[in-house]
Amino acid sequence: MPQVEVCLSPELLHLYSLDGKIAVVNDILRATSTMIAALDSGVKAVRPVVSIEDAETYLQHPNTLVAGERNGIKIPSFDLGNSPLEILNIKEQVAGQTLVMSTTNGTKAIDACREAGQVIIGAFTNLEATLQYLAKQEKDILVLCAGWKGRVNMEDSLYAGAIANGLHTTHTMGNDSALLTSQLYKAHKESLFAAVKASSHFERLANHGVEEDIKHCMRIGNSTLVAVLQDNLIIRQ
Amino acid sequence: MPQVEVCLSPELLHLYSLDGKIAVVNDILRATSTMIAALDSGVKAVRPVVSIEDAETYLQHPNTLVAGERNGIKIPSFDLGNSPLEILNIKEQVAGQTLVMSTTNGTKAIDACREAGQVIIGAFTNLEATLQYLAKQEKDILVLCAGWKGRVNMEDSLYAGAIANGLHTTHTMGNDSALLTSQLYKAHKESLFAAVKASSHFERLANHGVEEDIKHCMRIGNSTLVAVLQDNLIIRQ
Repeated sequence: MPQVEVCLSPELLHLYSLDGKIAVVNDILRATSTMIAALDSGVKAVRPVVSIEDAETYLQHPNTLVAGERNGIKIPSFDLGNSPLEILNIKEQVAGQTLVMSTTNGTKAIDACREAGQVIIGAFTNLEATLQYLAKQEKDILVLCAGWKGRVNMEDSLYAGAIANGLHTTHTMGNDSALLTSQLYKAHKESLFAAVKASSHFERLANHGVEEDIKHCMRIGNSTLVAVLQDNLIIRQ
Repeated sequence: MPQVEVCLSPELLHLYSLDGKIAVVNDILRATSTMIAALDSGVKAVRPVVSIEDAETYLQHPNTLVAGERNGIKIPSFDLGNSPLEILNIKEQVAGQTLVMSTTNGTKAIDACREAGQVIIGAFTNLEATLQYLAKQEKDILVLCAGWKGRVNMEDSLYAGAIANGLHTTHTMGNDSALLTSQLYKAHKESLFAAVKASSHFERLANHGVEEDIKHCMRIGNSTLVAVLQDNLIIRQ
């Protein structure tokens, strides 16, 4: 049986091999949730970009919107922040566009996984679709939590646990982080929002008035799309 | 209220400040459990040493025993391995001696905390005594899990959660790792050994025939001592 490993922070990624594995990158609050919302809204592709400067070079491109934040706050020169609900509210404007994104943690975590056999971008909003896809691949999986500036966080750990737990019939637990996040998820799966309300990131983000966004991100959604990284673009699989 | 933070791996320690804090270092399987067993057996002090070579310089010292392992296996030139039960079985021989110890993860983690205001060495075997001591100090606490070669492991995460959970009336949760290990501990506190049986390290160690040692390490014991690092020696507080 293939295995599923969990890496709780990009700072621990050097301890793992990505060779031939499927990397599942998540930054639940909110980068990867925003990416899934964008693809659900008809965006053609999401281009993750590490630096603000690189993202800004796309500002005048045709059919392109630039989105992102640092420390939870929209970058002033950008078109959009890092909010799934903001995107879902302007579906008509984003459909058919390319969304360039740069965020504090998420886009760096995606960049760190480029050596993997395949890179999948995941969120709770498309959890079931991602699980169904992964279960069929018969490949080793490494779930990378973006965390907060290297620190382990609650929401990404819960997502990693949802993946590890969801694959228990097709994959073995590859490390203790898979085992412990899986148990964490089982304890909280009926109340993901409540679990995150007690966390450090919740306070940080709630200060910016994004509680509704957090509720959206912590709900297992019914998006049927699987998001893959291909030639530096995140697209529907 | 002071806070309790948890650092799940020495590889994440650079993200935290140790300044003025009490660091609680644990390597449950088995270095810090062996250290507590040694102090309980009447050892005068434990000297943690990072390298095998440094430890070997103590081999002919009077009133000194040298103990330790690499990858779970006793170092051939040393007097003892890294087993709490081995020490407890030869109490008469170790009482009054200094125990020099070098292990794969634990002694390195202790070394990494030297900048802290105070360093405490903890194990499940003296959990209650350590909690009682910490609750009275009114200091910020950082629990450092030694992990396995930088990787997060189950047994050290459970211990960190036992500390975070045990201090909930005197300390606030300082980070998400404190929160999630606390929840992990609450889910498993009645069955710590069973929780570890599913982990990666269990297989690694059980291969060396030390299941009884693991049972000892995963049992909340009644040792009443608190172990502190002072001038490079671990002694009773």
